[in-house]
Amino acid sequence: MNEIIRDLHRRKSVRVFTDQEITSKEKKEILYAAMAAPTAGNQQLYTILDITDEELKKKLSVTCDHQPFIAKAKMVLVFCADLQKWYDVFLEGGCTPRRPGAGDLMLAVSDTNIAAQNAVTAAQSMGIGSCYIGDIMENCEVHRELLNLPEYVFPAAMLVFGYPTDQQQERQKPVRCRLEDIVQENGYRRKSSDELRRMFDKKCQSVSFEEWSRCFCERKYNSDFAREMSRSVRVYLEAFADQAANHGKGKEEGSCGN
Amino acid sequence: MNEIIRDLHRRKSVRVFTDQEITSKEKKEILYAAMAAPTAGNQQLYTILDITDEELKKKLSVTCDHQPFIAKAKMVLVFCADLQKWYDVFLEGGCTPRRPGAGDLMLAVSDTNIAAQNAVTAAQSMGIGSCYIGDIMENCEVHRELLNLPEYVFPAAMLVFGYPTDQQQERQKPVRCRLEDIVQENGYRRKSSDELRRMFDKKCQSVSFEEWSRCFCERKYNSDFAREMSRSVRVYLEAFADQAANHGKGKEEGSCGN
Repeated sequence: MNEIIRDLHRRKSVRVFTDQEITSKEKKEILYAAMAAPTAGNQQLYTILDITDEELKKKLSVTCDHQPFIAKAKMVLVFCADLQKWYDVFLEGGCTPRRPGAGDLMLAVSDTNIAAQNAVTAAQSMGIGSCYIGDIMENCEVHRELLNLPEYVFPAAMLVFGYPTDQQQERQKPVRCRLEDIVQENGYRRKSSDELRRMFDKKCQSVSFEEWSRCFCERKYNSDFAREMSRSVRVYLEAFADQAANHGKGKEEGSCGN
Repeated sequence: MNEIIRDLHRRKSVRVFTDQEITSKEKKEILYAAMAAPTAGNQQLYTILDITDEELKKKLSVTCDHQPFIAKAKMVLVFCADLQKWYDVFLEGGCTPRRPGAGDLMLAVSDTNIAAQNAVTAAQSMGIGSCYIGDIMENCEVHRELLNLPEYVFPAAMLVFGYPTDQQQERQKPVRCRLEDIVQENGYRRKSSDELRRMFDKKCQSVSFEEWSRCFCERKYNSDFAREMSRSVRVYLEAFADQAANHGKGKEEGSCGN
């Protein structure tokens, strides 16, 4: 295992930070590393919001499911899937773009998270810890206003960064499932009862599978924040409704060499 | 800049591969690196399909927008956002889970791409090239059948891998936008005409902005494959419709310590 792969394994979420600041040089290295990530057609279908306003950080720590450590992070980046800028580019160029659809959004969300993960890897390589905050997808109406998001911009990921405390450095990384729980060959196969139970046997050592799954379901899946996330994402999706009235019959406008 | 960040910058898409095989040890290192990626609540909301069947590779090279190099890749992985396995776990445990919603899907798509990008970084560190194939999101009906995907599984990313030819190694990485084109402070701001034009001035050296944007719009955005992607993703989304008839009043079933 080489040093780069070792570092991918070493990385774990950090939620408690020391007082050490992230320098502007370090921040730039992280941002440039994000921008170096693979991106569909070199489109960089994202915009990164660098949250430097302490009041705004505090608000986000409340609106993102009440997690005070967000406000204490030394750097907070909101990675937005951005179809707006492309729509605007096409309009500026005199094109007749169709309105963005669900596929455009999904491609942009992929682009955005791929870039975000490069930021995580770059930070880790400099000893800087990070944590994803999926809750940025909740509370659509509030976040659209707080972050001034137009309809074709979707906050796909939030990352908070800082130097980890000793306690955080020593914390054990949560154990992942086995390779055979996650990788299948050629086609998808739904798991048998035995396989479902075996997948989590490490987590059910002190309680039964039934008890563990009931608690996990209640805490993570049937929870208020998870329901809110689905409601909120539905609202964002309304803008990406593939309106039939779109124009953009590009091919009729003339020929383009590729 | 340290070696890890340098490698993130070095990485570019590879679409032509040498005959050198990827060993099973290398494949495992890549898969374990993917699984080491950050994942919401340690849920690993994905299943990775390792496409080893040559006939299936060929079919995917057709159904993914006719890209023959897919069939020639030495390793093909389909990263699926997987809510099905969790739904099945909860049912197996005797829970009453709600049906997965759009937010669950989006969180899983994030998880999935974050894991995929770790696979890319790990491969790169071993000299193995990779290319994302977003077209796996197209042709829902065909891909559901080819890959045996149940309704709560969405193929979020496909990655093809292989050792790069000399020509591919020498190919220049496409230039990204400037930092100030991508990063904004605190809130989103739509770009002015000048900013939109400046963002792509490097790409418009031999043609006007109008000509460049018209061609790009036609080729990438108003194209058949992009329209198909949005149609197809809409079909996948139908399964994640937040059905009102969901049960899962977890909190009434008893108390769970966290």
